[in-house]
Amino acid sequence: MVATDGCDTMTLEECLRRIRPLEPWAMEEARRRQGTLTKPPGSLGRLETLSIQLAGIAGDPRPQIGHKAVIVMAADHGVVVEGVSAYPSEVTAQMLANFARGGAAINVLARAAGARLIAVDVGVNADIPMAPGIRSRKVVRATRNFLHGPAMNRHEALQGLEVGIAIVEEEWRAGLDLLATGDMGIGNTTAASAITAVLCKRQAAEVTGPGTGLSSPGVVQKVRVIEKAIETLRPDPEDPFDVLAKVGGLEIAGIAGSILGAAAQRIPVLLDGFICGAAALIATGLAPGVRPFLIAAHRSTEPGHGVILAHLGLRPLLELDLRLGEGTGAVLAMPIVEAAARILTEMATFEEAGVSNRPETE
Amino acid sequence: MVATDGCDTMTLEECLRRIRPLEPWAMEEARRRQGTLTKPPGSLGRLETLSIQLAGIAGDPRPQIGHKAVIVMAADHGVVVEGVSAYPSEVTAQMLANFARGGAAINVLARAAGARLIAVDVGVNADIPMAPGIRSRKVVRATRNFLHGPAMNRHEALQGLEVGIAIVEEEWRAGLDLLATGDMGIGNTTAASAITAVLCKRQAAEVTGPGTGLSSPGVVQKVRVIEKAIETLRPDPEDPFDVLAKVGGLEIAGIAGSILGAAAQRIPVLLDGFICGAAALIATGLAPGVRPFLIAAHRSTEPGHGVILAHLGLRPLLELDLRLGEGTGAVLAMPIVEAAARILTEMATFEEAGVSNRPETE
Repeated sequence: MVATDGCDTMTLEECLRRIRPLEPWAMEEARRRQGTLTKPPGSLGRLETLSIQLAGIAGDPRPQIGHKAVIVMAADHGVVVEGVSAYPSEVTAQMLANFARGGAAINVLARAAGARLIAVDVGVNADIPMAPGIRSRKVVRATRNFLHGPAMNRHEALQGLEVGIAIVEEEWRAGLDLLATGDMGIGNTTAASAITAVLCKRQAAEVTGPGTGLSSPGVVQKVRVIEKAIETLRPDPEDPFDVLAKVGGLEIAGIAGSILGAAAQRIPVLLDGFICGAAALIATGLAPGVRPFLIAAHRSTEPGHGVILAHLGLRPLLELDLRLGEGTGAVLAMPIVEAAARILTEMATFEEAGVSNRPETE
Repeated sequence: MVATDGCDTMTLEECLRRIRPLEPWAMEEARRRQGTLTKPPGSLGRLETLSIQLAGIAGDPRPQIGHKAVIVMAADHGVVVEGVSAYPSEVTAQMLANFARGGAAINVLARAAGARLIAVDVGVNADIPMAPGIRSRKVVRATRNFLHGPAMNRHEALQGLEVGIAIVEEEWRAGLDLLATGDMGIGNTTAASAITAVLCKRQAAEVTGPGTGLSSPGVVQKVRVIEKAIETLRPDPEDPFDVLAKVGGLEIAGIAGSILGAAAQRIPVLLDGFICGAAALIATGLAPGVRPFLIAAHRSTEPGHGVILAHLGLRPLLELDLRLGEGTGAVLAMPIVEAAARILTEMATFEEAGVSNRPETE
């Protein structure tokens, strides 16, 4: 157990043991109810499917989405020295300060969605001043440059995962019905591309894009760095933990942990874009039972994200061509998830409303 | 001028004259501001484009979305006697009563979105009791069966359009920054398919689907009715008014009018699905300058809707496989439109936040 704050927190092993399937009876009851509501059966499309998923997660045919939060995991990446990002490393810490002051995109969108924002320093390469909404859980000051050796040792990777589990447990105690995942970390599309290449068994070039806005020669260099790292470190595709440690990042570990923690507490998880997708590959690799708790918010313009969504069999709710991260896409999809739950709890049935249903023989 | 409530209301002609282009200076200023906000340029994708459109519509580089409404136009269709719908005609009036009691899908979703709901009887084939949120603007009790002659005469079609213009004017006086369009009318996918076939120059079979849930033989019959009507009535593809009168419906006229009225008042319009798409074909046919005021919320599973969106060059925000109507998809997309506006008004710039921007030379 990693004691991060003096409280008893769940170990990874305990967390994995607590992940259980969705409740079939609640799903069946929700499916039956959808058929009695005043609308042609199936006409609310994916909103209906989503409501049944939420019922199964909550173990309640009338699930309630009251408390919402977005957890933004932040960390730095040693590999940035290889020229793989359009922005300097300092921006990670500067953006945490921006989160604390409320000026970032995720602040605006979380306010609009009525979600609380928790930003977590899991491995930022700077001293982060105490501020409301910022949690300090630094494992190390940035992961190491994986061009020359593993980004983390296995103990560090485990610590990162357990930070995610612990933060979700804290938030669950405060009340949490819907979790959005988010990331901040200059250089993290390089780690996400490496993870995707290994776990989805693709060439680096197929799953590597410009990230925050790299030039074409920059993308070529990024692909080379990833290829070289995979070649020398040989992360084991059958061992997601090994992949996370060797070519991952601490925010990716934190997100993977928060996904696992949410599934253990039966909280639906709205995944943001590419980085969260890579974290979901790690989480579902460690515990395949996590998959039914996931909802894909959108499809990033980063090419690796489409590969991840196909691999996980997830279809996004939004088509917005986002590529910002921070959890922005996930928070934008929150109202749709809430709407799905409210349809199930608030709509009238044909009988209640005195509306003629179509003849059974149609 | 159609005097519907004793107030002076705008005629169609006045309305068309008042539609002006978006304000280029406000769009330019919004575009410039997007480039200074603390995110990689372009990383919020379509949210950025949308914010620039909203700025151009409002004539304000910091547009505010305060008041939101969904207007659901309701009417009946004589063509229903031909067996083109899975539900009986009575359901239109029964659903209006459901709207009044707050039990329909659109009630739930409008409450969730913080939008007021106005349901308008433009041509329901029943006496609709007075109720809060229901407006009585009946032109006739259902349009005529267009298999045997025009659904409406030109005066009735004009009245339907002017109802839409008048309702939006009333709502604009009450405060309206974002309009969602919606429909209720058993049989209206038949009218929408006929309009789409004529105005997008497609075969009826390409743009006709099961609507609320017609069986396959039912769809074949529906296609035959539409083909026959187009063959005998010969609606003129160069005259959208003629098409509306001959094979349209009164809710479609009302929606087309509300789209025109919103553009005249510089209010952005979130289009719902197939029926609203057909109304948008009429509205843009009457006034091509309406197009920049439109936002497509989603793509219905009805095959004709994809054809309309391609014809108008609109890309939907949501991928939810909806086919309910009532404005449900439009209202589900409202939070995204609001988010786009709030990004522009609430996010910090690189300078304000002290965040390093990427080097210009990247």
